[in-house]
Amino acid sequence: MQAIGVIDSGVGGLTVAHELMRQLPKEKLIYLGDTARCPYGPRSKTEVQKFTWEMVEFLLEKNIKMLVIACNTATAFTLNDLQKKLDIPVIGVIQPGARAAIKFTKNNHVGIIGTEGTIRSEAYTNALKSIKAEIEVNALACPLFVPMVEQGVLSGEQAREVVEDSLKPLKRYDQMDTLILGCTHYPLLKDTIQTVAGEHVTLISSSEETARETSTLLEVHQIQNKEKLFPVHQFYTTGELEIFIEISKSIFKDSNAQMVRINKANIG
Amino acid sequence: MQAIGVIDSGVGGLTVAHELMRQLPKEKLIYLGDTARCPYGPRSKTEVQKFTWEMVEFLLEKNIKMLVIACNTATAFTLNDLQKKLDIPVIGVIQPGARAAIKFTKNNHVGIIGTEGTIRSEAYTNALKSIKAEIEVNALACPLFVPMVEQGVLSGEQAREVVEDSLKPLKRYDQMDTLILGCTHYPLLKDTIQTVAGEHVTLISSSEETARETSTLLEVHQIQNKEKLFPVHQFYTTGELEIFIEISKSIFKDSNAQMVRINKANIG
Repeated sequence: MQAIGVIDSGVGGLTVAHELMRQLPKEKLIYLGDTARCPYGPRSKTEVQKFTWEMVEFLLEKNIKMLVIACNTATAFTLNDLQKKLDIPVIGVIQPGARAAIKFTKNNHVGIIGTEGTIRSEAYTNALKSIKAEIEVNALACPLFVPMVEQGVLSGEQAREVVEDSLKPLKRYDQMDTLILGCTHYPLLKDTIQTVAGEHVTLISSSEETARETSTLLEVHQIQNKEKLFPVHQFYTTGELEIFIEISKSIFKDSNAQMVRINKANIG
Repeated sequence: MQAIGVIDSGVGGLTVAHELMRQLPKEKLIYLGDTARCPYGPRSKTEVQKFTWEMVEFLLEKNIKMLVIACNTATAFTLNDLQKKLDIPVIGVIQPGARAAIKFTKNNHVGIIGTEGTIRSEAYTNALKSIKAEIEVNALACPLFVPMVEQGVLSGEQAREVVEDSLKPLKRYDQMDTLILGCTHYPLLKDTIQTVAGEHVTLISSSEETARETSTLLEVHQIQNKEKLFPVHQFYTTGELEIFIEISKSIFKDSNAQMVRINKANIG
């Protein structure tokens, strides 16, 4: 059974993995999180490209049938290149989120939050406007969110304060009816972000949307798994095994934890 | 500028066309509604296949770059065949709705309403279960909805009574949290269906979801239109021009009506 490869700068992509397991329970995943070098957000384009290729090579050796770049920063800087150079389908997290936002917005006012790298790349703005030029975009970098999530702070007073403070510049645009969580770490803060943004704003999780489009691509390329066996997923981290396992547990709490094997990986 | 071809048994596919215009405003559409032979729902598989091929040939002569089968009955009976035989991408309305339902449902209890043909084909049940076997499906044919919509009865007391009466067998399954509108005519009755089904049920419009996946396929096949011109769409009906124009107006009321040219077509 060939697996779907999933890469991320750390644990954020686990939200994509979780959605893949939920929406595509027959598919086996091999996940690699580059926790040792996380976050990618503040890094240069060249550095992100180098690190991403190292992760891709690790997964290609495991004979994956498709690649999911479950990291917005890596998608912004490497998607086009990987799509050209690999002979398996490659999907990023930006286009699915952009398409979902276009579907949901009623008034064409869309907000985006992400890392500095993602926002600086303008990848979401380009993805939205290339499809629908009349979309009004307000983009905001939230550099504190990823380090906070990687430390396991997902809710409570501290999380609330950081989110409230970070989103202030966006709250001025009260016309916004749709907000893209343009970083795969952010769904872990979804409840807090929803409270701060207000109930009238539809939050788009790039994780859910990417899992859905992965399903579409499996069908287009006719590479769905049709076996009825329960897959055993393989997860790798380049960093501390312990904290990775702990965060995995909190994300996969509603899934069968026995289906996941977590190991240490050495790359780069 | 090559167009996206859209076919339907009548006016139902106009809800898909409307969503395509909303979500993909740069794309030109050529639409053919086989109103003269509508509804397809009660017809035999062979008949639906013959009529659908006649529509496809009409559109292929107009050099379309992609085909959207905006009719659930036609999708159920012809999608696989058309995907194999045409050398342009072909998308139906069933898989996008199924994938959206899998994304939305929290408790895996999904309802489907559609024409007799669609429900009899079990195309939705197969699409859902092939991806996620644990989905519990309750499917129900609602044969009165299409004739009612084709006569322009979209709301009011009569519509409410017909919907209430038709959905009774489904209402017994109170665990259902997601209901697929498995016919492109049904979004025209969305408000009435939502009231009868209850606010706790998420309605999935196969029209919205198909437009979104059309966007995905345009990208996968790199055939998006990148021009900035406003497209002028061409709509054709095999039936009465007058009632087709009237229903089009009610569906496209928020769009620029000047962008649509409606003509009579002779096929078959």
